[in-house]
Amino acid sequence: MRSIVSRSRRLLLASLLCGLALRAEAFAQAEPLPSWNDGPAKQAIVRFVQATTDQSSPTFVPPAARIATFDQDGTTWVEHPMYTQIVYCLERVAVLAKAKPELRHVEPFKTVLSGDRAAMARLTMKDLEPILAATLSGMTVGDFKADVGRWLASAKHPRWNRLYTDLTYEPMLEVMRYLRDNGYRTYIVTGGGQDFVRVFSDTTYGIPVEQVVGTMGGTTYGYSKDGKPVLTKEPKLLLNDDKAGKPQGIYLMIGHRPVAAFGNSIGDRQMLEYTGGGDGARLMMLVLHDDAQREYAYGPAQGLPDTKVGTFTQALYDEAKQKGWTVISMKNDWKRIFSFDQ
Amino acid sequence: MRSIVSRSRRLLLASLLCGLALRAEAFAQAEPLPSWNDGPAKQAIVRFVQATTDQSSPTFVPPAARIATFDQDGTTWVEHPMYTQIVYCLERVAVLAKAKPELRHVEPFKTVLSGDRAAMARLTMKDLEPILAATLSGMTVGDFKADVGRWLASAKHPRWNRLYTDLTYEPMLEVMRYLRDNGYRTYIVTGGGQDFVRVFSDTTYGIPVEQVVGTMGGTTYGYSKDGKPVLTKEPKLLLNDDKAGKPQGIYLMIGHRPVAAFGNSIGDRQMLEYTGGGDGARLMMLVLHDDAQREYAYGPAQGLPDTKVGTFTQALYDEAKQKGWTVISMKNDWKRIFSFDQ
Repeated sequence: MRSIVSRSRRLLLASLLCGLALRAEAFAQAEPLPSWNDGPAKQAIVRFVQATTDQSSPTFVPPAARIATFDQDGTTWVEHPMYTQIVYCLERVAVLAKAKPELRHVEPFKTVLSGDRAAMARLTMKDLEPILAATLSGMTVGDFKADVGRWLASAKHPRWNRLYTDLTYEPMLEVMRYLRDNGYRTYIVTGGGQDFVRVFSDTTYGIPVEQVVGTMGGTTYGYSKDGKPVLTKEPKLLLNDDKAGKPQGIYLMIGHRPVAAFGNSIGDRQMLEYTGGGDGARLMMLVLHDDAQREYAYGPAQGLPDTKVGTFTQALYDEAKQKGWTVISMKNDWKRIFSFDQ
Repeated sequence: MRSIVSRSRRLLLASLLCGLALRAEAFAQAEPLPSWNDGPAKQAIVRFVQATTDQSSPTFVPPAARIATFDQDGTTWVEHPMYTQIVYCLERVAVLAKAKPELRHVEPFKTVLSGDRAAMARLTMKDLEPILAATLSGMTVGDFKADVGRWLASAKHPRWNRLYTDLTYEPMLEVMRYLRDNGYRTYIVTGGGQDFVRVFSDTTYGIPVEQVVGTMGGTTYGYSKDGKPVLTKEPKLLLNDDKAGKPQGIYLMIGHRPVAAFGNSIGDRQMLEYTGGGDGARLMMLVLHDDAQREYAYGPAQGLPDTKVGTFTQALYDEAKQKGWTVISMKNDWKRIFSFDQ
């Protein structure tokens, strides 16, 4: 027995030292959300963190259950005028057509290769499916990662002429850090490709690859020419991590119901609903794109028609109000949007 | 700039204090593998941990990449004479037949309900599929978890008359703890149902649910009678986490290639091969069931025919020897097998 007691004492000492060190660090962070204006959205975040991490709170959440999920496109980075991953796929078509010249005569490849931007803009997500399948499968997972990495290091958004990974929302990065500093694990839960987002999740969000939940494709297991085991991306959909697929993906990959969830469109509705379905303190937030000057304005406030990117309908807005989900106004709640803003 | 510097200093101090505390704890653990006899298997484990965690080692592995994967059935707990999850499913048939009496006349339910053990033993895994589908789907994920939990709290293994969760291998639990104490994250990677194993992974192995990779089934998203969002288990296979499915499941759920992998059958071959396909120090181990007295003897040494449980073929044994995978002899390498052994 003696050795067990002494081991638990040492563990206690170790955890006390760690605890003190981390507490000192947390305490020193007097202003965790500097890019947020004081207002109901910022207050909701701070109140939620206090309510779930203060041991004396009736809604205290133990560290193992502190899960926060973030949609990506339109929630943590710019999604207009086109999802970044779609831009990647479209730009890959030229490369693909070099290897397979017969694609030049097949739609929708033909339209994309024509360079006719008006015709390209008319392509629906459904039209684009053969392009997604062709550009996101057939290569090893290592080759895909390397190719996306190269592309992200040079491709630029037409409006800002900046790397796509520079177009993350500084206020949301602050929320992620604030939650992590308070014992939360932060996950990306995206309708985008899981493999695509994993390429930059760590450097861009501080989120390790195993905490990225996205649309999942199958792989095949095989061998390279020199006999090394390799996984090759297949054009087979395992789970479409959008709408009802988001709670399904969360259950599959995380196995816990989140305590906080952030989104911006009808693709996130079920994730927020599922998060809100648990007991105790919960935080559900929706980013409203209402700032045409600093970013874009689309969604219910603008009465804009459906676009190819995340749709924030009037019905979703009404549901948010009814259920107590917090709508974040980019215009009013965010002091600055990008890290390069003054 | 001042505040950035000062923040990084505080972080440094915090991490130094944590590091010191954890190092003191690790140092105090003089004997991490007490249930192992001194021999090549134990030496391989200790040598591997030293080679991957010593900063001055040319094969040092940074903490984020320290991933160790463990098969479950036959690797971390008893799988004979039948996988525990199959026992659960068979015992659920009686409950199911109460709700759906028509099943009494349908095979293979009829045979299972007959209680004819000889006839039941003749059922192949293929024959059992309708039973797995019927007993592992149709309920909410919460109800399934509760039911498995109740069953595990009372069902007992016929040979030892003990709970199945008591029949874990003490030496493997020690390896898991030893790896975790050295900064590794330990994962279960099982052909068994992911949802099934998640019910007890934390209490039995100290492995949180998000670190259980198993055979994955689909769910549907819907609402309970009182309007709460619920996920219901579907009889839809997303990924069969066995053989080539193991590296696929690891890539999907973890996104890193493991540095260490433990198995006991041809179902683990590709996982070990994939693990060994990376650079640097690697640890691949196979548990050989060669101890009829304390547990069971099956596999190449015994020349036994194929069974319903993990098959350790002569070809796998030869491959292990050729590739430098370590074969663990339960008889020779393990001082004790269960925590209740003297």
